Amino acid sequence: MMIAHSFRGEVFGPAQRLHGATYVVDARFTRSELDADNIVVDIGLATTELGQVLSELNYRNLDDMPIFAGINTSTEFLAKHVADRLADSVHNGSLGEGAKGLAGIEVTLKESHVASAGYTRAL
Amino acid sequence: MMIAHSFRGEVFGPAQRLHGATYVVDARFTRSELDADNIVVDIGLATTELGQVLSELNYRNLDDMPIFAGINTSTEFLAKHVADRLADSVHNGSLGEGAKGLAGIEVTLKESHVASAGYTRAL
Amino acid sequence: MMIAHSFRGEVFGPAQRLHGATYVVDARFTRSELDADNIVVDIGLATTELGQVLSELNYRNLDDMPIFAGINTSTEFLAKHVADRLADSVHNGSLGEGAKGLAGIEVTLKESHVASAGYTRAL
Amino acid sequence: MMIAHSFRGEVFGPAQRLHGATYVVDARFTRSELDADNIVVDIGLATTELGQVLSELNYRNLDDMPIFAGINTSTEFLAKHVADRLADSVHNGSLGEGAKGLAGIEVTLKESHVASAGYTRAL
Amino acid sequence: MMIAHSFRGEVFGPAQRLHGATYVVDARFTRSELDADNIVVDIGLATTELGQVLSELNYRNLDDMPIFAGINTSTEFLAKHVADRLADSVHNGSLGEGAKGLAGIEVTLKESHVASAGYTRAL
Amino acid sequence: MMIAHSFRGEVFGPAQRLHGATYVVDARFTRSELDADNIVVDIGLATTELGQVLSELNYRNLDDMPIFAGINTSTEFLAKHVADRLADSVHNGSLGEGAKGLAGIEVTLKESHVASAGYTRAL
Repeated sequence: MMIAHSFRGEVFGPAQRLHGATYVVDARFTRSELDADNIVVDIGLATTELGQVLSELNYRNLDDMPIFAGINTSTEFLAKHVADRLADSVHNGSLGEGAKGLAGIEVTLKESHVASAGYTRAL
Repeated sequence: MMIAHSFRGEVFGPAQRLHGATYVVDARFTRSELDADNIVVDIGLATTELGQVLSELNYRNLDDMPIFAGINTSTEFLAKHVADRLADSVHNGSLGEGAKGLAGIEVTLKESHVASAGYTRAL
Repeated sequence: MMIAHSFRGEVFGPAQRLHGATYVVDARFTRSELDADNIVVDIGLATTELGQVLSELNYRNLDDMPIFAGINTSTEFLAKHVADRLADSVHNGSLGEGAKGLAGIEVTLKESHVASAGYTRAL
Repeated sequence: MMIAHSFRGEVFGPAQRLHGATYVVDARFTRSELDADNIVVDIGLATTELGQVLSELNYRNLDDMPIFAGINTSTEFLAKHVADRLADSVHNGSLGEGAKGLAGIEVTLKESHVASAGYTRAL
Repeated sequence: MMIAHSFRGEVFGPAQRLHGATYVVDARFTRSELDADNIVVDIGLATTELGQVLSELNYRNLDDMPIFAGINTSTEFLAKHVADRLADSVHNGSLGEGAKGLAGIEVTLKESHVASAGYTRAL
Repeated sequence: MMIAHSFRGEVFGPAQRLHGATYVVDARFTRSELDADNIVVDIGLATTELGQVLSELNYRNLDDMPIFAGINTSTEFLAKHVADRLADSVHNGSLGEGAKGLAGIEVTLKESHVASAGYTRAL
């Protein structure tokens, strides 16, 4: 996804100016035993759900989105946002019945080939 | 480099909104014979010059920069901008005497691991 | 795309057995001058057309497809197949009016991170 | 390795047809203290053993292999198969004496640059 | 970083000869809660500190460095060396006040696109 | 391949000291028409020949090799060395009869994920 945003805080230096980023977003699902189809999760449904979460952010200026008002939308923060949204998808059944057996989710946002941030959570 | 910008034209769809991008920028220099040190170009100087060109764009909203007024700052356009600036560096000697023997420059901007654009020119 | 196939000819060794491959397919379009929108090609349309061409091959046993009867569906051959189909898309207008100014297409199929083949053609 | 196979179960959609995949296979070995040579494992032996395990699957139609009869040979399943075989190699000494101190193995199969599955186990 | 070194021990085969390696070094920092700026660590400071640690090794023959006398400077060993030095940076405040809340560090040295080693430690 | 070497000339800065490098080496073969088996080259033979050329350099200090006496063994120079050796293999038949129809060779040496050099020649 490609977004624009700015940061508040001296630690961000020139990134306090409005700038942008391409994030390549990976989601990893974990479980201790495979489901009845011998898979961890339905990769088709997982791709659709992840795409849905990202489409709400893609091609936007995050500074203008009410849900992020007053928040530094750091890569770390966005990783947690995406992971929590996918956790909701697991719990509400959007990832299928088999997904009820998932143990955890890890979401990684790659800003470039040298910088990335991720968030890991249990389900 | 990480920039913000927007596009004008129906072809751009949601990218007409202010959004952003991380560009991983590669420069490739070509010549028919190596120089006296057995190299194509001084990679230290080339890295410095490329860094200089990118620093003028990094962490900026390109829509606000006078030199890009009225221009769609597409990845393709930016690749040409960077290549032309590096060609200036070759011609004004900033890349060293050996660089006078260079034949061409190719600049590639990777928006993500699936999309990129480049520009190739002679010197 | 993920396909199954087999090869005929001693040169292929164990690949004469029915096996399979994941191909990551990249298409590169070239032109001498950018179009009126400052782009090489509408990347949305190009992605759709490429996806269309690949969908006809994806998850199939190429040995069973009449159009490939008696043909070694090597990576090299498939690269040409895809490039020629995209050239058709350019000529029939599926890639938009701006695409009429394209000069060439290069299609690369990566079998893995160490093996790939490609085909380059003029338009 | 390059294999052909098909899946049973609606969740697999078009992948229920016979198709194929290239898997790039990585093995990661862990331990709490390095061995007497200051290494985790003899990378030469590990590469040989991994190559041996993969050679039994490479260029084959997994649907025809008796050991996989009635099994969905998903990427997840194959990751466990490879990890368990490498664990056998550790226990029977094929990875050398130093390998007796290994704590765990993680095997990852990359289907493409956007899809992969892995299996992690203790030793 | 690019270094020269040799190994002692039969397990290393031809790598007992003086040879060299390019290591692409990644550092990953972990914590349970983000700091006041919504980040894990100041990536600018982290990059500077990592660069400082690597500059002491870069373009050197490790066999000639007194601190490594009698030690096999394996990739695994070097990963621990770098991680321990970064841990010092966290504890002495070089990574900023926010870094005091870090929980762990993982350092990975990639020798090539097929071989890497890492070290993970708590803080 | 992993080698040690040093450079002569101020342009090389700290790389004048004995240091080392991992080179990931890719060879690309081109031709205008595919051969009778529908391939560009026998990838098995090509891999063997390339491996043979690299094995003569791997795990060595290039400064000590008579064939490189008095030569800056830059990445650019080594790319030409490898390409010329592969051209010999084509001409002496080591790459098979089909290889007689090859038009060109391009060899690329990647020092890291940000630096590489290559050499392109006709056959």
